[in-house]
Amino acid sequence: MQDDTRTRLIAAGAERIRRQGFNNTGIKDILDAVGVPKGSFYHYFPSKEAFGLAVVEHHMERLGARGRELLNRPELEPIERLRAFFAGLATLQAEQGYALGCPIGNLAQEMSDLSPAFRERLAVALKGFGAPVAALLTEAEAAGNLPEGLDPQETAAFIVSAWQGALVSMKVAKNASPFRAFDHMIFDRLLTRRS
Amino acid sequence: MQDDTRTRLIAAGAERIRRQGFNNTGIKDILDAVGVPKGSFYHYFPSKEAFGLAVVEHHMERLGARGRELLNRPELEPIERLRAFFAGLATLQAEQGYALGCPIGNLAQEMSDLSPAFRERLAVALKGFGAPVAALLTEAEAAGNLPEGLDPQETAAFIVSAWQGALVSMKVAKNASPFRAFDHMIFDRLLTRRS
Repeated sequence: MQDDTRTRLIAAGAERIRRQGFNNTGIKDILDAVGVPKGSFYHYFPSKEAFGLAVVEHHMERLGARGRELLNRPELEPIERLRAFFAGLATLQAEQGYALGCPIGNLAQEMSDLSPAFRERLAVALKGFGAPVAALLTEAEAAGNLPEGLDPQETAAFIVSAWQGALVSMKVAKNASPFRAFDHMIFDRLLTRRS
Repeated sequence: MQDDTRTRLIAAGAERIRRQGFNNTGIKDILDAVGVPKGSFYHYFPSKEAFGLAVVEHHMERLGARGRELLNRPELEPIERLRAFFAGLATLQAEQGYALGCPIGNLAQEMSDLSPAFRERLAVALKGFGAPVAALLTEAEAAGNLPEGLDPQETAAFIVSAWQGALVSMKVAKNASPFRAFDHMIFDRLLTRRS
């Protein structure tokens, strides 16, 4: 029962923090949403920061599950798998009106300079996002399908950054155009072997 | 004198908002920093949002001046001018400890879903950042120095997004590695003609 309340607090907080930011989200709102009496928050979390880190953890688990799906589509060539993965994320963005962005990227922008604990956790999270991307590029390289001279690790880090940037641009533009540019530049140009 | 106070309020707010976010910055802090009596804020700005939009304007003017510098270096080929421009921005990031990021990008992430007025203004600002980039790519294209099939407008929009993403990654990593990946992928790969 206790654990269930903790989980519900995290889910309610994750949704609000994603929409309106961490500093802009009050603990009271979260407690009200879950119907937990004021004052019991600190029974579950030692501080608001600890709560925020639990929210990061929650998002990492969700993104990790998505990353495993990405790696688990042997019917597609590695680079096609990667392209399908980002196309899937872009569809989610479209469904939510090109709002909200990436919960990890949002917190990276908001919190990295304000809390060393957040920064450390978010660094791990962003690396965790890059790892399956690098794994696919390494697989493509082994099959001779990566353009010469591209390092899978550096390329993966760049793709993750460029995706985070595309999400910010989609938030502003409220349309798919930043995704289309990302998709075209990464997959038709950067990752395409030219003879 | 009035105008001077308004300018000082904007400068003090711009610095705080850049560091800690718009929603996380109190008007009282800004008034205290400038030494203006509480209560006179609304003499200068009708609302906190109007103040935030004036801060966006302030950053756009600064970035616009930088954009004009970028276009004003005829001794460099267009793509080299662009590369030097981002290298200059990366040096600024290094000097400030890979903190703070881009004031426009930060607000784009924080405010686009919370305020239509911010979103509209930030869309103009990001387009304003893309325009000199597109102009340089168009110049490169005319000189036959852009890889075939790259559209200057779309490529410029992608580069601006990828740069915003690199800034978020630098905030988290606190080192130049995301810039190096950006520089290498954009200038040695995407914008390099291969035979």
